[in-house]
Amino acid sequence: LRISELSQATGVPVPTVKFYLREGLLRAGELTSPNQASYGDGHVRRLRLIRALIDIGGVSIASVKGVLAALDDPELSVHDLLGSVQYALRPAQPRDDPQWRAAYAEVNEFLAGTGWRLREHAPGRVRLADVLHALRSRAGEPVSAEAAFGPYVQVAAQIADEEIASLAPADAPREALAEQVAVGVATSDAALSALRLLAQEDASARRYG
Amino acid sequence: LRISELSQATGVPVPTVKFYLREGLLRAGELTSPNQASYGDGHVRRLRLIRALIDIGGVSIASVKGVLAALDDPELSVHDLLGSVQYALRPAQPRDDPQWRAAYAEVNEFLAGTGWRLREHAPGRVRLADVLHALRSRAGEPVSAEAAFGPYVQVAAQIADEEIASLAPADAPREALAEQVAVGVATSDAALSALRLLAQEDASARRYG
Repeated sequence: LRISELSQATGVPVPTVKFYLREGLLRAGELTSPNQASYGDGHVRRLRLIRALIDIGGVSIASVKGVLAALDDPELSVHDLLGSVQYALRPAQPRDDPQWRAAYAEVNEFLAGTGWRLREHAPGRVRLADVLHALRSRAGEPVSAEAAFGPYVQVAAQIADEEIASLAPADAPREALAEQVAVGVATSDAALSALRLLAQEDASARRYG
Repeated sequence: LRISELSQATGVPVPTVKFYLREGLLRAGELTSPNQASYGDGHVRRLRLIRALIDIGGVSIASVKGVLAALDDPELSVHDLLGSVQYALRPAQPRDDPQWRAAYAEVNEFLAGTGWRLREHAPGRVRLADVLHALRSRAGEPVSAEAAFGPYVQVAAQIADEEIASLAPADAPREALAEQVAVGVATSDAALSALRLLAQEDASARRYG
């Protein structure tokens, strides 16, 4: 493919493709003449992944580079690659405040009870601690991690199992798998949140309407 | 209660309480002397609601006023009050673009198929259209509302039913009900998203690890 055809195949404008080439997000094509390069299916797949990360996921160029490095590391398992995509899309920053640390410790204890196999630096731990800390910062009754998150564990596992089962098999092109995860992470939160609030409206109509 | 006691009971600093009084978010207390006013349980409940909306929900003062107006309107049912809280926390803006309008129309058709009783201006409709539009803006296969959202309908209804069932009964103080909904909306998205991503990590470890 010429660069103009690569652009057509992916819907990415030529100047943007050139920008990605300069930034090193996209490997240079094979030179067919001093002024012309040829691009292949690998470029198409990679461009689709980059666009999913940036356009739908809102990921920074720096984080995209991290994901692409994971993609190109043959030592990295598919599981670790998917983790790097997830973490790039939903990063989190631990805090130093002692009350936050206490919430974080309790979250980790709670998560240990789920039996899930989780990395120690999974940002979801930090994000749960943020929620627990926010709930506790209000005057009133103390809130335990179990009370706050327990009701969601089974349902979260059920959704996640279906989502992972719907992904391509481990021998699919790594870009395609990473793209599926990127689009899924970026859109499913919004979709599930909106559907849940709509379903609440229906449940509220039945209970209070 | 004096203003200092009201502050202690709610954890809201006195200057902030005075700001809410000036802004009309909080009704004036009963004057017990030219320089002193007395506050009651209603003030405590209302302050807790205001803090939940602002601190945890990130709602603007203007939107808080809208929720409080709904709270004080005796004609408004509990169902409509809860809707006003939900909409203040998760507003959405329809767009004018024809492709977005097509996605919006398809979302509404899809939602009609769920049988849920929904208001015509429910912002969740707009937010689902945003997701569908984003998915479709990518080059590649077209995506239907059914394919994008169908897998989440049952699980969203299940979570929502439990959440609404856990609320106080219809004859509870309206501020307390509104506060429960505000805290729930503000924190459950984050909690469910984090738990779902953690559960995905476990499911990915089992499938690809």
